[in-house]
Amino acid sequence: MRNEKIKVIIWGIGSMGSGIAKMILKKKGVEIVGAIGRKTHVGENLYDVLDMGEIDRKPVVVSNNPEKVLKNNAADVVLIATDSYVKQSYEKIAMCLNNGFNVISTAEEMAFPWEQEKELAGKLDLIAKENGVTVLGTGINPGFVLDTLILALTGTCEHVESIKAARVNDLSPFGPAVMNEQGVGTTEIEFVEGIKNGKIAGHVGFPESIGMLAKGLGWNVEKIEQTREPIIAQVERKTKHIKVKAGDVAGCRQCGYGYVDGIIKIDMEHPQQVKPELESIDTGDYIWIKGAPDISMSIKPEIPGGIGTIAMCVNMIPHVINARSGVKTMLDLPLPRAVMGDMRQFIEDWEDNK
Amino acid sequence: MRNEKIKVIIWGIGSMGSGIAKMILKKKGVEIVGAIGRKTHVGENLYDVLDMGEIDRKPVVVSNNPEKVLKNNAADVVLIATDSYVKQSYEKIAMCLNNGFNVISTAEEMAFPWEQEKELAGKLDLIAKENGVTVLGTGINPGFVLDTLILALTGTCEHVESIKAARVNDLSPFGPAVMNEQGVGTTEIEFVEGIKNGKIAGHVGFPESIGMLAKGLGWNVEKIEQTREPIIAQVERKTKHIKVKAGDVAGCRQCGYGYVDGIIKIDMEHPQQVKPELESIDTGDYIWIKGAPDISMSIKPEIPGGIGTIAMCVNMIPHVINARSGVKTMLDLPLPRAVMGDMRQFIEDWEDNK
Repeated sequence: MRNEKIKVIIWGIGSMGSGIAKMILKKKGVEIVGAIGRKTHVGENLYDVLDMGEIDRKPVVVSNNPEKVLKNNAADVVLIATDSYVKQSYEKIAMCLNNGFNVISTAEEMAFPWEQEKELAGKLDLIAKENGVTVLGTGINPGFVLDTLILALTGTCEHVESIKAARVNDLSPFGPAVMNEQGVGTTEIEFVEGIKNGKIAGHVGFPESIGMLAKGLGWNVEKIEQTREPIIAQVERKTKHIKVKAGDVAGCRQCGYGYVDGIIKIDMEHPQQVKPELESIDTGDYIWIKGAPDISMSIKPEIPGGIGTIAMCVNMIPHVINARSGVKTMLDLPLPRAVMGDMRQFIEDWEDNK
Repeated sequence: MRNEKIKVIIWGIGSMGSGIAKMILKKKGVEIVGAIGRKTHVGENLYDVLDMGEIDRKPVVVSNNPEKVLKNNAADVVLIATDSYVKQSYEKIAMCLNNGFNVISTAEEMAFPWEQEKELAGKLDLIAKENGVTVLGTGINPGFVLDTLILALTGTCEHVESIKAARVNDLSPFGPAVMNEQGVGTTEIEFVEGIKNGKIAGHVGFPESIGMLAKGLGWNVEKIEQTREPIIAQVERKTKHIKVKAGDVAGCRQCGYGYVDGIIKIDMEHPQQVKPELESIDTGDYIWIKGAPDISMSIKPEIPGGIGTIAMCVNMIPHVINARSGVKTMLDLPLPRAVMGDMRQFIEDWEDNK
């Protein structure tokens, strides 16, 4: 086992980035050596920002100067939790790769960047290979429930005819940013308008999940379609962050369809809303594979989104360090798993791994 | 994509081996170039033995001379479906590796051979590396339900406190060999005696699944315990192959426990029986992870054992060809997935992969 701890830089200290930092602080054999923020908390000690009580470690000052943090620190990997789209995160990722650091990104589109940003994905792949490092996009979804987990189940199938999956989840723990993104609390008219003008994004990730499934199975997807419709509250639904009146929008039901040989072979449904239990809606993750054999899987309640994304990013650190260089996806790396012991024990001891 | 088809030799043409052969015949980009049997069907054309109707391919004559088959054929991988234990399959696997062929084995102990046969596993690892080839043991269980799938789910966990899993399956489709192995149709007294003298094996694979889980998570398992008890039929249970009287043994309930830090952290239950539906027993695969977050998963009915093992072996062919050399487990390779298109598209084009 290597002597030195695994060194991590955190880029972005919003809810995902600070969750990642907190999880790393609970793990053995890994340490945070740098933190990059944008406005809030710049100049403060990251450990004070995280509000975890007294932490007996050398302070890590949050900086808004990424170049400086990347130049002044030796790190194994930078965890970037700032954006949802490849375009927004491209410069940040490229900067890390050019400094010789592996990257794990929470950006949904980075889970399978070739689907919507082929050119940028190709550029990142080249930069990563030139620098002998790896970049992976992951999270709960895309990254696990509606792609990795489905694919793993198909490993037991002689033949797959079609795939249907649903993730029915609860948005109640999330703050204002997610509420705006999903249109929670809007009127039905505002929701429809918001979808039209792009202010309400809904779920980012169906094309990526569908692209991963297709590549993993060897299907040629001709067309991907998506629909987004409002989930209208029948009763008042109230969280710490928002109050939705009966008749207004409690969330967004998004569907995604992948066409193979002219028919829908991949069918995904993802209704996201606050307080579903107030209308007796059971949350859960569901996968139905039609094939040989048929498989019907359910996880109830759903794997929670925030903690799931944080865990996936941290648990993939050893796999990303071990990987060959380039842009990788969950298709390329060994299966994810919780890192319970010293993280260094999972680092492979071989020299030709780049 | 490479021009030449992927070439496979089948060693063992019992129910698993012939199932593997049939599945390969339905896939694109892969062909069978040799078949090794023991007694039955030697000298016959494999395609007649499989009874799939007219097959327009060059005959593959079943041979009982492994040396000759391995010497006279160039193949990418040998699929060995003959034994359950490392000791029994060691010579066969070593012979394939020494001839420069990758190996996929259905032997349950090969799923994690270090657990019970450390020395032989080490020898195979050395032989594989000397010959630049890879050996993998896989199947539905061990290989997927009670190890790979559990680990993949823990990838979404910040912390895992303990794991409980159950595979409640139906043995009705299986023939006399499995009935004897599980003690189906014996009296309770015969069952207890059979377990004592080793004639009833029960499930082979708990130590391997527990070993894989522990290695995957980084837990240090101090002790593994197993129990086997008869499932007594309350009503007559009859299949094509066996008739179990009420009061006699319909199957074997096996439990496995892995101790970490002095307590049971891995708890597995695997009741296998014929015709469970006659006593309103629902079959299924169940996983409960206690941690952050808790996860409760079910697959109902269970993923069937025979087809699941066959599919896992065939679907892992590209991953085994792509892998670095040595003894590998499901922990080391990319996640399993159904191969639906031309199998050659999954072969990575790189020279330094050994």
